[in-house]
Amino acid sequence: MDQQIFVQMVLHAWNINIKRAEKFFDSLTDEELLKEVAPNRNRVNYLLGHLIAINDNMIGLFGLGNRSYAHFDEVFVKNPDRSGLDMPDTATLKNDWKKSNAELTSYFNKMTPQDWFSKHNAMTEEDHIKEPSRNKLSVLINRTNHVSYHLGQLVLAK
Amino acid sequence: MDQQIFVQMVLHAWNINIKRAEKFFDSLTDEELLKEVAPNRNRVNYLLGHLIAINDNMIGLFGLGNRSYAHFDEVFVKNPDRSGLDMPDTATLKNDWKKSNAELTSYFNKMTPQDWFSKHNAMTEEDHIKEPSRNKLSVLINRTNHVSYHLGQLVLAK
Repeated sequence: MDQQIFVQMVLHAWNINIKRAEKFFDSLTDEELLKEVAPNRNRVNYLLGHLIAINDNMIGLFGLGNRSYAHFDEVFVKNPDRSGLDMPDTATLKNDWKKSNAELTSYFNKMTPQDWFSKHNAMTEEDHIKEPSRNKLSVLINRTNHVSYHLGQLVLAK
Repeated sequence: MDQQIFVQMVLHAWNINIKRAEKFFDSLTDEELLKEVAPNRNRVNYLLGHLIAINDNMIGLFGLGNRSYAHFDEVFVKNPDRSGLDMPDTATLKNDWKKSNAELTSYFNKMTPQDWFSKHNAMTEEDHIKEPSRNKLSVLINRTNHVSYHLGQLVLAK
């Protein structure tokens, strides 16, 4: 019961921030999606791809299945904006954002509180015994803060 | 036991983001504290005062005691940057940031898991029975995202 409420709290914060970001992306024209958030800083389309890649990474980290956007890591995580690497066009990115969130929601809805409190794949059994507060749910708390961090930057492009 | 772990997880995320923000503010000169995060956007000192006021607000919302920075609300929350209202100088703001966080930490350390899962002062008993996931800990999750949101903007001033 307590665990259920706690999972709800964390998922609620995640969903609110994802919806805020989606509302923002939907409000932009294709041209605005190519704007920088501030002079010489990341462009909106780069941050959009970056958020898709980092969020999609949870599928692997939580052992939920095969990642859908692992091919985004090279251009949107391992390299900075304007690396010269090919980027999907803005319409594709906007659509991928929705697809990726729908997929994550579908996975998350199948997870039990026990799943959320279990260890993720980047830690050992010993790590988890020593620090049970490091678990899948704590990763989602961090990822929510990560969305929020970049959303703060994104709104400056408007 | 479980409740204790939830509280630890949320406090951990809070502390990490507060420390990141503090490290950032400490890295700036007094002159840099007066810079805008992007052209015609909020200045760093405004966001610093804004975060102090919003975080300090939890003292009242959680019924922990009297707020220390309620007088910041007028200039840093109810009004935008460059409102013409008097602002404390940057050295004072930097010091207030540390004082405010130390005070919050001291309050938070005294709270039991039961306290965290209880209702805050902006909701009724009925609200809390209907939606137990709305509680003090969920407010702290939101405030952590709020710090993260503005930290994303602040780093652009560097």
